[in-house]
Amino acid sequence: MDFLTRLSAAQARAGSVLCVGLDPDPDRLPEPLRDRPAMEAVRDFCLAITEATAEAACAFKPNLAFFEALGPDGWDVLTDVLAAVPDTHLVVLDGKRGDIGTTATCYAEALFDRLDADACTVAPYMGRDAVVPFLQRPGRCAFVLALTSNPSAADLQLLEVGGEPLYRRVARVAVEAGVDQPGTAGLVVGATRPEQLSELRQAHPGTPFLVPGVGAQGGSADEVMEANAGGPILVNASRSVLYASPGRDFAEAAGQEAARLAALLPYRGGPPG
Amino acid sequence: MDFLTRLSAAQARAGSVLCVGLDPDPDRLPEPLRDRPAMEAVRDFCLAITEATAEAACAFKPNLAFFEALGPDGWDVLTDVLAAVPDTHLVVLDGKRGDIGTTATCYAEALFDRLDADACTVAPYMGRDAVVPFLQRPGRCAFVLALTSNPSAADLQLLEVGGEPLYRRVARVAVEAGVDQPGTAGLVVGATRPEQLSELRQAHPGTPFLVPGVGAQGGSADEVMEANAGGPILVNASRSVLYASPGRDFAEAAGQEAARLAALLPYRGGPPG
Repeated sequence: MDFLTRLSAAQARAGSVLCVGLDPDPDRLPEPLRDRPAMEAVRDFCLAITEATAEAACAFKPNLAFFEALGPDGWDVLTDVLAAVPDTHLVVLDGKRGDIGTTATCYAEALFDRLDADACTVAPYMGRDAVVPFLQRPGRCAFVLALTSNPSAADLQLLEVGGEPLYRRVARVAVEAGVDQPGTAGLVVGATRPEQLSELRQAHPGTPFLVPGVGAQGGSADEVMEANAGGPILVNASRSVLYASPGRDFAEAAGQEAARLAALLPYRGGPPG
Repeated sequence: MDFLTRLSAAQARAGSVLCVGLDPDPDRLPEPLRDRPAMEAVRDFCLAITEATAEAACAFKPNLAFFEALGPDGWDVLTDVLAAVPDTHLVVLDGKRGDIGTTATCYAEALFDRLDADACTVAPYMGRDAVVPFLQRPGRCAFVLALTSNPSAADLQLLEVGGEPLYRRVARVAVEAGVDQPGTAGLVVGATRPEQLSELRQAHPGTPFLVPGVGAQGGSADEVMEANAGGPILVNASRSVLYASPGRDFAEAAGQEAARLAALLPYRGGPPG
């Protein structure tokens, strides 16, 4: 089954395009977990968040940096968290890997084969060679960074190259690299730039978009959904869900915030197929 | 002690600027290791290579993708390999991480604090925000991708932006981000493009360069050394050393190839300080 069909299935079940980002910061854990050993606390935090938000969300996006920061044992914590994600949900492993040749093939193996991710994020600076090895598995998707939601995205991504901004060129390189396997190449487009999202959507109507930056980073769910014009999309929220409450009710509060966001991010595609 | 002083010390000892890249591909292991379980075989391969090339090399550069491709236990293999690198040598962890804010801080923690790397590689596509968190430790260095040695580097890095190629802009963003802490910001510049290396060296005379692509990728050691004009540099070779022989003499052959390359890559800076 191709990635777009799997995406539709997960979203039809949830009724939303909400992806919950798992960025477990040991310094921001809720009060009941704060005095526990870091590994255990991060694992239990992620398990509680996953369970509390699974109803509203169609996907989870673990941010690899937060697991790597725990040291080598962080990978075991990640493995436990992945095991707890229901089969009905997609997993996007967010590592922004980007390298060439056998190195990129190794990253694809690590993410898709060893950790069984449904999708991942890829950095494009090394060009087409850095993207192609992630596009070899028909059911999986690599979301390539096009336009990100941070302020210094402007340092490079908005620079004009040959009459267009760099991010548009990047988007084209990525989409063309995946043209033989529809759905394998996706784009990361920040929620903080709805105008550019709309323009990228017009240029690439069938390409899956991963849109971070709703919630804590200030992107508006309404504006994103309007700009997206019904294309395949995953909209990610991390901190506003994870840290919805610092107290004993953290999981309940996360579930409520996920439900609130899901209502703003409805899936309108009908059942898959 | 700042990174440039530490680099000089390691290079004065070795008499060379050679860095040996550890990209252990299970499919290319030498014959005596081929039938062993993958983890064990990769670990023993890396330990044998490290020991055989330590005399000639001043640094080792484990490529994280190859360890991640082993699954979560690959991180334990990496930990064992890092423990075997002599204190006289520098370790560059090559993961080309690139993200923003707390995520980038987590990657820096993972590489510098948990794995105790002396340097790492960083991808610049998200702009200055993605570089700065790696420049907070005076003794360590982040080599930011500027111009890479692969063919499709031309897809983006050579595009003209505001009257100069993108890689020059990237180099400036990276070097300026580290201006308060000299030596913390380095650049990755491929050995296959000596003309551009020379021009980047003129623009950034005191910036450490990490130069991959000598050996299997076709870059010439002589041309690199001439283009570099005596600036702080690490020149990396991976496959030509690792796979110098497929037989029982693989470690000896790797040591000989490293010694051959080291003679072409002499350190001319005298003792540090």
